[in-house]
Amino acid sequence: MRRLRMGMIGGGPGAFIGPVHRFAAELDREIELVAGVFSSDAGRSAAAGEAYRIDPARAYPSLDAMFAAESARDDGIDFVSIVTPNHNHLPSARAALAAGYPVITDKPLTATLAEAHELAALVEAAAKPFGVTYTYSGYPLVREARARIAGGEIGTIRKVVVEYPQGWLAGEAVGKQAEWRVDPAKAGLGGCIGDIGVHAFQLAEFVTGLRVTELLADLGAVVPGRLLDDDCSILLRFDNGARGVLLASQIEVGELNGLRIRAYGDKGGVTWKQEELNTLTINRLDGTCTLVRSGTGVLGNDAASRTRTPGGHPEGYLEAFANLYRDFAAQLRGESAPLLPGIAEGVRGMTFIDTAVSASRANAGWVKL
Amino acid sequence: MRRLRMGMIGGGPGAFIGPVHRFAAELDREIELVAGVFSSDAGRSAAAGEAYRIDPARAYPSLDAMFAAESARDDGIDFVSIVTPNHNHLPSARAALAAGYPVITDKPLTATLAEAHELAALVEAAAKPFGVTYTYSGYPLVREARARIAGGEIGTIRKVVVEYPQGWLAGEAVGKQAEWRVDPAKAGLGGCIGDIGVHAFQLAEFVTGLRVTELLADLGAVVPGRLLDDDCSILLRFDNGARGVLLASQIEVGELNGLRIRAYGDKGGVTWKQEELNTLTINRLDGTCTLVRSGTGVLGNDAASRTRTPGGHPEGYLEAFANLYRDFAAQLRGESAPLLPGIAEGVRGMTFIDTAVSASRANAGWVKL
Amino acid sequence: MRRLRMGMIGGGPGAFIGPVHRFAAELDREIELVAGVFSSDAGRSAAAGEAYRIDPARAYPSLDAMFAAESARDDGIDFVSIVTPNHNHLPSARAALAAGYPVITDKPLTATLAEAHELAALVEAAAKPFGVTYTYSGYPLVREARARIAGGEIGTIRKVVVEYPQGWLAGEAVGKQAEWRVDPAKAGLGGCIGDIGVHAFQLAEFVTGLRVTELLADLGAVVPGRLLDDDCSILLRFDNGARGVLLASQIEVGELNGLRIRAYGDKGGVTWKQEELNTLTINRLDGTCTLVRSGTGVLGNDAASRTRTPGGHPEGYLEAFANLYRDFAAQLRGESAPLLPGIAEGVRGMTFIDTAVSASRANAGWVKL
Amino acid sequence: MRRLRMGMIGGGPGAFIGPVHRFAAELDREIELVAGVFSSDAGRSAAAGEAYRIDPARAYPSLDAMFAAESARDDGIDFVSIVTPNHNHLPSARAALAAGYPVITDKPLTATLAEAHELAALVEAAAKPFGVTYTYSGYPLVREARARIAGGEIGTIRKVVVEYPQGWLAGEAVGKQAEWRVDPAKAGLGGCIGDIGVHAFQLAEFVTGLRVTELLADLGAVVPGRLLDDDCSILLRFDNGARGVLLASQIEVGELNGLRIRAYGDKGGVTWKQEELNTLTINRLDGTCTLVRSGTGVLGNDAASRTRTPGGHPEGYLEAFANLYRDFAAQLRGESAPLLPGIAEGVRGMTFIDTAVSASRANAGWVKL
Repeated sequence: MRRLRMGMIGGGPGAFIGPVHRFAAELDREIELVAGVFSSDAGRSAAAGEAYRIDPARAYPSLDAMFAAESARDDGIDFVSIVTPNHNHLPSARAALAAGYPVITDKPLTATLAEAHELAALVEAAAKPFGVTYTYSGYPLVREARARIAGGEIGTIRKVVVEYPQGWLAGEAVGKQAEWRVDPAKAGLGGCIGDIGVHAFQLAEFVTGLRVTELLADLGAVVPGRLLDDDCSILLRFDNGARGVLLASQIEVGELNGLRIRAYGDKGGVTWKQEELNTLTINRLDGTCTLVRSGTGVLGNDAASRTRTPGGHPEGYLEAFANLYRDFAAQLRGESAPLLPGIAEGVRGMTFIDTAVSASRANAGWVKL
Repeated sequence: MRRLRMGMIGGGPGAFIGPVHRFAAELDREIELVAGVFSSDAGRSAAAGEAYRIDPARAYPSLDAMFAAESARDDGIDFVSIVTPNHNHLPSARAALAAGYPVITDKPLTATLAEAHELAALVEAAAKPFGVTYTYSGYPLVREARARIAGGEIGTIRKVVVEYPQGWLAGEAVGKQAEWRVDPAKAGLGGCIGDIGVHAFQLAEFVTGLRVTELLADLGAVVPGRLLDDDCSILLRFDNGARGVLLASQIEVGELNGLRIRAYGDKGGVTWKQEELNTLTINRLDGTCTLVRSGTGVLGNDAASRTRTPGGHPEGYLEAFANLYRDFAAQLRGESAPLLPGIAEGVRGMTFIDTAVSASRANAGWVKL
Repeated sequence: MRRLRMGMIGGGPGAFIGPVHRFAAELDREIELVAGVFSSDAGRSAAAGEAYRIDPARAYPSLDAMFAAESARDDGIDFVSIVTPNHNHLPSARAALAAGYPVITDKPLTATLAEAHELAALVEAAAKPFGVTYTYSGYPLVREARARIAGGEIGTIRKVVVEYPQGWLAGEAVGKQAEWRVDPAKAGLGGCIGDIGVHAFQLAEFVTGLRVTELLADLGAVVPGRLLDDDCSILLRFDNGARGVLLASQIEVGELNGLRIRAYGDKGGVTWKQEELNTLTINRLDGTCTLVRSGTGVLGNDAASRTRTPGGHPEGYLEAFANLYRDFAAQLRGESAPLLPGIAEGVRGMTFIDTAVSASRANAGWVKL
Repeated sequence: MRRLRMGMIGGGPGAFIGPVHRFAAELDREIELVAGVFSSDAGRSAAAGEAYRIDPARAYPSLDAMFAAESARDDGIDFVSIVTPNHNHLPSARAALAAGYPVITDKPLTATLAEAHELAALVEAAAKPFGVTYTYSGYPLVREARARIAGGEIGTIRKVVVEYPQGWLAGEAVGKQAEWRVDPAKAGLGGCIGDIGVHAFQLAEFVTGLRVTELLADLGAVVPGRLLDDDCSILLRFDNGARGVLLASQIEVGELNGLRIRAYGDKGGVTWKQEELNTLTINRLDGTCTLVRSGTGVLGNDAASRTRTPGGHPEGYLEAFANLYRDFAAQLRGESAPLLPGIAEGVRGMTFIDTAVSASRANAGWVKL
């Protein structure tokens, strides 16, 4: 079976998430990066193409150029991956969909909720696979947690705590990665909440199978001069009545990428931490504490089918990210891959961001989601 | 120098915290348990006295009996330790103070804020040492964290997260320890917030040297039929403008006694976890991560002077608790021991409980503290 | 029931293990320190007595003085605790036994194997309780491990690895604690092997229920000028054919008191680490990994009966040490407490030290034990 | 710059390490798998080729076929990667070298020491890049440890402990991966020692910069019926006089892939564990304990240049393995990449295996290496 051919939008020199998408897409050899508009600057796009070692002719200076050229090739791209800053998600996706390509895009879906709704309509009309790379839903033990909760292992959920501490924006925002994230013109409505809070939100709904129905948001811009939030504390209610807390911050010095989730039911509890990704902890009311370790025979199918190494050979962030592309490749082949977040999850994330930002600004207390 | 003589109120058969106070008081051999009213039931008081191996004549059936007899002895008690359920704190302390004895009491100070104010007036009038056993301020590395923050090691604090997860009340409240804690007549105004939330609150102010000025409380009674809160999520503001979060729960299955605190400034961050009490983590903006380990030469005086074993010989909960009694003994001898919480901290804790419970019931949003 | 009265030999100013024995003996209030010969120097003995807050008249300048005076009192000592450097264990025990007192002594039993045999004969003749404080057999989860292995949980043992890394003697041996341990006149035949290697050896036999039948020893004096071993690597064979490794070192910089043991059978494996004493890890062939946590309902009776706090309230080194004194107190009362090491384990430890030191010096390869 | 083209020998259906080499080679997009003899069975080779999604014409049934066809193509392979069981390393490498191709091979170099010497002569004659994938020398923090030790951070090394516990062969050896490893005809001289002991040995020399000069080996075949060693305990001496211990086992139930190394000098100590690969612990004599975390600014160049993600985004086994291919690609381009193990390290590993197996069988005590 041939490899699917990917065209990338974004991911030029200095990018972080572009190379990650490339690693992830190609890891399982189901996909190959062959073309891209890596930058709106032709020279920078060409430089990136060279760094990615693709055919120089396929590092394009514009979306139009790419779609025109690729659609004319027998071996043209099969789909588009969008890895730009947020404000370019919608225009990129709009163009790709118009040119007839399936799309997978980084999160958050767009810069604003209005854009998200516009995109949703376009996706619905296009009727092509559309994926959103909420990274953490690709982790095998996150899927294990999800499957075990769905199977009733912890009973009815009563409480969910999801935390996402980082510290890298505690000082001045220096460098390409930091700069666009603190610029409302590029990041959109949310700072920390759009960059990582939305990951925590999606993870909470993904793992528990519940939906947040209300929230109370307290967002702050802590570092002097910052225009967007860099610290978020949000209280939650879920559709089954469960209580929840979502904390995300980018000013917690020394925290690297400490996403973690704990869910507690009336029979047990589960805990998972991104920085110790290969272990899941399961507790029961009777005091039993079990560690579910990646690569061992105790994993269910959702996790086992997305694990590449035996126990004790740690998988990491890139392998987890690759699981999203493996799912997307399956969808492109016409197979079912229901765990890949799609347009609905993308819109939902934007609704969360929009609601939380608005509610926090208005000091509105509890609001519906 | 002779040992100070302690009379205990509470701590009868089935008690948890009474034996803990006994261990803690005697560990350093500065104090000796010699008498007590261990129960309001004479037979049970006598049985407890025998279990504690004290002189049977000094296991009294009532406060009056104890104070009358002990004040008549040459070797009578020097002070009183109160370890009853909350609703007996005030009457016990009132009687002890009236009899002229210094008092150390378990937390929370009283069952209600009004009682706390009444007790504060009595303490002021008595002008004797008065201690409140907020356990976690006795931990050496908590004191190390406090000293380092006071010394500027993490700069100006911007964010504080204090969490206190437990799971032991996730099922039905069975047994002496559980039963009184879920009974408003004995526990007072607060359930989880009075049992452990107040520890978290006191720890946050103790470690950071800041004071909470505002809070937003979301307390819930999750287990069916429960009358008092068993799950608390509280947002905080501190007097320097720092943001904060306080989470406490007793329904998080599998969590044992997971108190932990993280404080972040503009130069660094500190993290401490009660269940890994002998290590403190210090992070700096430049990526440096240092572990401060108990019993090593890197400790400051506050911590080193309250540590009894060399590095790697773990100290635990009882040793930490004993540090509060060592402080109290110092105060009884007329020495300074400023880190022992006193009546002011006791009243402050009750104010916190009262404010949070009221605000949560009223869904009042942000309120002053 | 009255408290048993302890007379201590050793434990004078600057001592480490003397105060530990005092903490441990008194923790459960079954025993009280009332007298001692804390130093062979009368002034120092008196100073120590004052620090321990005992009756000044009962801080004696000599063994003869103590035994004469105490035997004449109605409230005289019930037993003797020996906490001196190794070379004084035998003379102290000999005198105590001659005076008719039960004895509990720190490890190793004596300075030499010949002394150990002499003492064993005296103990046999005396027919009184005799305990040896191999500390680590007092840890609740060590007893849990022992009980589970005895119950067949990991099947037939095939492999045992016991490690005891420390680093505190990596530099010059400075201070009272270090100085006597590196002085053959006081420490006896072994340095590191007598100080900590013997703990590891006893732990391995205690936990597994097996006996070492052969060993191959490689002992080194690494720090320049050191006269006794400070680094030990020993290969083992057990009586069921199982293979083993025992590593102990005092020159591993940064290691505090890292004793740990792992035992593997044909059905499972167990792991315990002293510095994380409140957790035991159990693995099974099918990949299941369970954490047994102190204070939870999953503990067996051996462990549960020697635990004082609920889960998550860490117990430490002193509480574990206290379990040995609780056992000894039981023996003094005529009860059974079979897990307390006695004279046989004491002699066995000395045989181990003597055999290993001799075999290493002779580069003898495998030798019988 | 074009991608280098790899031809693989081995890695057919059911293989573990073949896919790992493919992941690793392609991760940085400097190399592409284009051809292979994945099995000596033509049908199986074709099936593997399809699974790898390469051109079906380039999945060859024999080495001869591959070398003939590839050398005739303009876009033929640039080098060969050998991922067969051990007994096929030499014949595969011999053929590849004869056909003029650079070679990178899995470890151990060959099945026997004699074969290793034969291969070394061929490599010398060929004068092409030749790499050996001792996986663990590719881990960024292993390289950080090496650089810090070389820079004097822990002083003169006195003690090295390297351990490699696994448990997956504790039961019967079932499945393709297990079966060849316990078969002398395929694995060669060593079982556990050749599979993982040699990794531990190479890691010890790589990290410390020292060379083992003597060893004492105790190898056992523990599982009934096993023909090769499955449990190894080896004592070491290094060329600077330092003492060492190497433990490797495949019968330690519950251990997954627990490789770890600790090195202690007269100024400090370092510890690294494969299963927690993104952190390195540095201790100093004064009690300071520092965690060096991957992706932070405290890394030196050797580690930083081989890290692909920011701190807290864990890298794993595959990314580390990929660093060896990145080094090999650099060598193929004529650049220096001195940290990639080559033929000398390959022969050295075989010498270690041969010496240890022989010495253990003869119960020879200390022998020279």
